[in-house]
Amino acid sequence: MNVRIVEVGPRDGLQNEKAPIPTDVKVALVDALSEAGYDEIEVSAFVSPKSIPQLADAAEVFARIRRREGVLYSALVPNEQGLDRALEARVGKVAIFTAASESFNRKNINATIDESIARFAPVVPRALEAGVRVRGYISTAFWCPYEGKIDPPAVVAVAKRLLNLGVEELSIGDTIGKAVPGEVHALLDLLLDSVPQDQIALHFHDTYGTGVSNALAAYERGITIFDSSVGGVGGCPYAPGAAGNVATEDLAWALERSGAALSLDLAKVSAASDLLASALGRPLRSRVRDALRGASQRE
Amino acid sequence: MNVRIVEVGPRDGLQNEKAPIPTDVKVALVDALSEAGYDEIEVSAFVSPKSIPQLADAAEVFARIRRREGVLYSALVPNEQGLDRALEARVGKVAIFTAASESFNRKNINATIDESIARFAPVVPRALEAGVRVRGYISTAFWCPYEGKIDPPAVVAVAKRLLNLGVEELSIGDTIGKAVPGEVHALLDLLLDSVPQDQIALHFHDTYGTGVSNALAAYERGITIFDSSVGGVGGCPYAPGAAGNVATEDLAWALERSGAALSLDLAKVSAASDLLASALGRPLRSRVRDALRGASQRE
Repeated sequence: MNVRIVEVGPRDGLQNEKAPIPTDVKVALVDALSEAGYDEIEVSAFVSPKSIPQLADAAEVFARIRRREGVLYSALVPNEQGLDRALEARVGKVAIFTAASESFNRKNINATIDESIARFAPVVPRALEAGVRVRGYISTAFWCPYEGKIDPPAVVAVAKRLLNLGVEELSIGDTIGKAVPGEVHALLDLLLDSVPQDQIALHFHDTYGTGVSNALAAYERGITIFDSSVGGVGGCPYAPGAAGNVATEDLAWALERSGAALSLDLAKVSAASDLLASALGRPLRSRVRDALRGASQRE
Repeated sequence: MNVRIVEVGPRDGLQNEKAPIPTDVKVALVDALSEAGYDEIEVSAFVSPKSIPQLADAAEVFARIRRREGVLYSALVPNEQGLDRALEARVGKVAIFTAASESFNRKNINATIDESIARFAPVVPRALEAGVRVRGYISTAFWCPYEGKIDPPAVVAVAKRLLNLGVEELSIGDTIGKAVPGEVHALLDLLLDSVPQDQIALHFHDTYGTGVSNALAAYERGITIFDSSVGGVGGCPYAPGAAGNVATEDLAWALERSGAALSLDLAKVSAASDLLASALGRPLRSRVRDALRGASQRE
């Protein structure tokens, strides 16, 4: 099956980095990723600089990246003001976001799920009218750091409400990386009854090393859209609740070896990964990255 | 299901380390592992010191470890001389080994598969007669660095020959860590026709990050014996063909979250892992290790 990998490294990957990353680095990273064959790269977020200082330069990053034909450059928007800024920056796609867990939603964006959906209601039609695609994130769709296990019906309920707003694609997130394949199957058992599989992306974090396992389980069920970050960047090394996304290199390697057709050039993904590792000054967490680097150093 | 994890870190994990590891460290590592609840620890190998210099102190390690009641302490033996040394060291279990790939067997132990099986023919009954259990490793059971993909019938043929020698348990190895779950299912489809599932252990390396995925796929099929190394130690960081075993911490975490009953105490596995990391002077590669360390540092 054809699989589409949405690169979320520049946004989800970098948003928790404590030290400010220069805009130059972000632009160079997105440009390197654009060369690697993705058809979608999540570049940044038009949120309040107070809530995510690292992404305060979203407009500048969008202004300076070299846009490659056929690549969608997307951004998170939390409300209509965010949408205005995103449209001005000529994004190709916007993403709205809510949690499946009430407690997480309150702690994360200080709103109930009802309130956040109400806030997004005017955003979706305006984006679509402007010719911009719309994704809806559902975070903590498996486990919540405050509530524990989230039951599939809670996720399906939020999914339906987002689709009713006009959202075209859902990204179902294992925010704290605690899911295992059995839980992926259990959620998909229910979710696929209500949502066509081509509208579902899965978004795994690799906190406990099950990111690839979970993605392969979802692929078995016909899911063909996956989020990942180059080099597995993300989170803080000392905060397991916020560990990185599954690494693009690991995900792409496992999917390709499992028969999926991907448009990515892994050597170019690795080049982007090298650029990022050297900017962050620390090793990134991808097995495939390590294996490929080892192989090239032995040659 | 009850799952048994065989800790192979002291042998498979350390055998490729270039710098000599002091015997004291090896003894301390095995002693720390003995506290963690394993019922089997592969301690070393009674092979020629020329072929694996790192394990030349096998007899001394066996002489100095504190043996815990109920734990099997095992070692690799390449021939009858090795068995003699192993019996003298009072091992609880010996492992013989061959590859499923002719080319790999020749490069690795300079013998055809026929020759290595002939060499082991007298070892097995002698071991069993001495009251020592016998495992048989089949390496390169999925991929060979020289021949590429190894077809399941070749593995099944070797498996049958080892069982005919009297071997009680087979450990089927993805030596270069290139397998994916679909290949695990394909091999088990055939192998389970000839070998009872409780005589099959699976031995995954995590070169490309699919070790946990492969183990979970095998667990789905009723396999309940898995090899792993504490902290994912193994191989050389610059030789992808020899990357580490799947990390015990990652494997145990994923299996337990998937419903398996294990006897391991993960905090004590982590303590053994800390000891090893500090002796090797480099970080080990386990997601769960990182996550647990992060959590304890935040407390």
